[in-house]
Amino acid sequence: MAGALRGPSDYAQEPTRHPSLRINAKEPFNAEATRRDLVASYITPVDLFLKRNHGPIPILDDIASYYVSIGGLVDRPAKLTLDDIKRLPKYNVTATLQCAGNRRTEMSKSRKVRGVGWDVCALGNATWGGAKLSDVLQLIGVPYHTEITLSGGKHVEFTSVDQCPEEKGGPYKASIPLGHATNPAADVLVAYEMNGEVLKRDHGYPLRVVVPGVIGARSVKWLNRIDIIEEECQGFFMQKDYKMFPPSVDWDNIVWSTRKPQMDYPVQSAICSLEDTNAIIPGEVTVAGYALSGGGRGIERVEISTDGGRTWSGAVRYQKEGVPYVPGDVTSDKWAWVLFKTVIDVRGDTEIIVKAVDSGANVQPESVDTIWNLRGILNTCWHRVRLLTIHNLRSLL
Amino acid sequence: MAGALRGPSDYAQEPTRHPSLRINAKEPFNAEATRRDLVASYITPVDLFLKRNHGPIPILDDIASYYVSIGGLVDRPAKLTLDDIKRLPKYNVTATLQCAGNRRTEMSKSRKVRGVGWDVCALGNATWGGAKLSDVLQLIGVPYHTEITLSGGKHVEFTSVDQCPEEKGGPYKASIPLGHATNPAADVLVAYEMNGEVLKRDHGYPLRVVVPGVIGARSVKWLNRIDIIEEECQGFFMQKDYKMFPPSVDWDNIVWSTRKPQMDYPVQSAICSLEDTNAIIPGEVTVAGYALSGGGRGIERVEISTDGGRTWSGAVRYQKEGVPYVPGDVTSDKWAWVLFKTVIDVRGDTEIIVKAVDSGANVQPESVDTIWNLRGILNTCWHRVRLLTIHNLRSLL
Repeated sequence: MAGALRGPSDYAQEPTRHPSLRINAKEPFNAEATRRDLVASYITPVDLFLKRNHGPIPILDDIASYYVSIGGLVDRPAKLTLDDIKRLPKYNVTATLQCAGNRRTEMSKSRKVRGVGWDVCALGNATWGGAKLSDVLQLIGVPYHTEITLSGGKHVEFTSVDQCPEEKGGPYKASIPLGHATNPAADVLVAYEMNGEVLKRDHGYPLRVVVPGVIGARSVKWLNRIDIIEEECQGFFMQKDYKMFPPSVDWDNIVWSTRKPQMDYPVQSAICSLEDTNAIIPGEVTVAGYALSGGGRGIERVEISTDGGRTWSGAVRYQKEGVPYVPGDVTSDKWAWVLFKTVIDVRGDTEIIVKAVDSGANVQPESVDTIWNLRGILNTCWHRVRLLTIHNLRSLL
Repeated sequence: MAGALRGPSDYAQEPTRHPSLRINAKEPFNAEATRRDLVASYITPVDLFLKRNHGPIPILDDIASYYVSIGGLVDRPAKLTLDDIKRLPKYNVTATLQCAGNRRTEMSKSRKVRGVGWDVCALGNATWGGAKLSDVLQLIGVPYHTEITLSGGKHVEFTSVDQCPEEKGGPYKASIPLGHATNPAADVLVAYEMNGEVLKRDHGYPLRVVVPGVIGARSVKWLNRIDIIEEECQGFFMQKDYKMFPPSVDWDNIVWSTRKPQMDYPVQSAICSLEDTNAIIPGEVTVAGYALSGGGRGIERVEISTDGGRTWSGAVRYQKEGVPYVPGDVTSDKWAWVLFKTVIDVRGDTEIIVKAVDSGANVQPESVDTIWNLRGILNTCWHRVRLLTIHNLRSLL
């Protein structure tokens, strides 16, 4: 270990955070950007990027003695230093990481769910720099495109150095299937850079995993170990959390083992230029936000309705400012969100709805009720905001 | 060419078909099984499997002179006989092929669409036997996992020997991305068997392509050519059909080039033990059908509602009779549908709704209106059937 281990309640040395963040929990620190900050740029500044933690932020400042242990069902276990990782070919992958709990607060309004409350900004889009996990695994003798090793390994487990509360089983852990990990085209990274800078402590310094197209919970920070294992990781956050149950399951009848850990996520969009309720002067209103989908599926279209979903009009989509988004273009950032913008003329009180369709023609559900689940994950229902003209808003006060 | 070419209106020598098929168009022949026939078995009998054609069925009976030409942007063009293909390792892949127009008739009830009308049975699940396309391409010098060749090839085009009407550009053609074609795990086959028997004429004898997880229109039958090309196929069925437009686009404002050819398809389910309207005697009613999703995403759950979608209960899912379906199980048939069954107690007139959720938490849309498109493809809205008690049905007559 290359730094002082911090007990699960030692929050004395947390990093300094940007004052504009919306803090949803202080210890462990969980915070998101404001809506307007989030979509001000295609690449999310590090300071404004989703902070999602289950314990204190580790301090790993003795880089000379830091290493990642690679073991489990492998012939040649290894200890790789940061320099070993940096000697592998470096890739820059622009990928959006979204917490499975994004938009949980809204789901809780339908029926109470458990978990940290999140508005619509529990995600961020960054350019991650690092080695491909497939190259790291090749170093220790696991070839590209291996689904099962000779010794029966089928999953790759990542273990953090962080300290989660005891009931959550110590260090944070997660796994992904070996075939995913060893597929160079899946762009799974062992990353040491974020937006061209050295990874910050809040985001996993010195090394983290980035699994594009998959819920954020599998992109383990402050990497301590990588293990090839036979079955999927048995850690708390794989087996007792981040699983999607039907609306009929509640805390009195849940059987965790009946569902698999969530990986891929469905198409999502949200309006970020407006809050849930807005006071406006009638006239032109900008409707802007983000849309994304899991599994590398691009966004096919983003649509806006002002009549309750009866009719829809398209919004302009873009990636970098001025660079139009081309659905199906293999050179585009397939793991990244698209931003959208449109201007509508508002005469009176209006509800604005956004929904997106991905390249697989997958859609967002109209209502939250059919996807409600007790842990409040994957809320991807149509996103609705209300505009109240100043006159009517006053009459409400 | 290893048989007599048949003009686009020469329907004199069509194969004999099963008398129970529901015929949606005679020339070209388009037919589907009845609902009950379709879900009577996990593997769809060849005779009852969706027949989807754009021209007369070719006759390729001189196998000694039959070959597939492989060319385009390759260093070593080749002509492969059926025996050449059979000498490659043989794979059996159980995959459901679904026509993008499945459930089109239902979409047309919301607002008229163009195209052959289909009930809910424009699909079938078969075990396809053949060589992997990735192995065929390796034979001619294109390695596994190639996204682009040295000469700039990025797509693989399949050309049939069939003769579509002139306005549809002659032989049927389609392409898939090269990275997909050269990925052995994608299980794209050059197939010569269906359910353990030699491919029948109606299904592509002597050779067809099977692209699992993708709309049926890309699985070209009666294979004549395989070409490595720079851009995606420019044929009619790629560029002027099988694209998904938003509901706001109609025949007077369509710009075909603004959308990409559909590949992946979204989560789908339908009830097949019942017709749209059923006369019943109050009591136990079996609700059975199929659920599937594109891109190799498995089915997470199938749910039934009898109160308009307010509450839902789960249905039993299975693959082979007696073999339960395990979501996330990598040993299961990832490209295949699951069948489901439940029994409900019906007291009076009832609407039964089914919907499914896939492993990526993708959902089916509640209403057809938000996914309506002028070509009537990808109708995946909640499937609804009505039960009318005998007494009430009589009163309607």
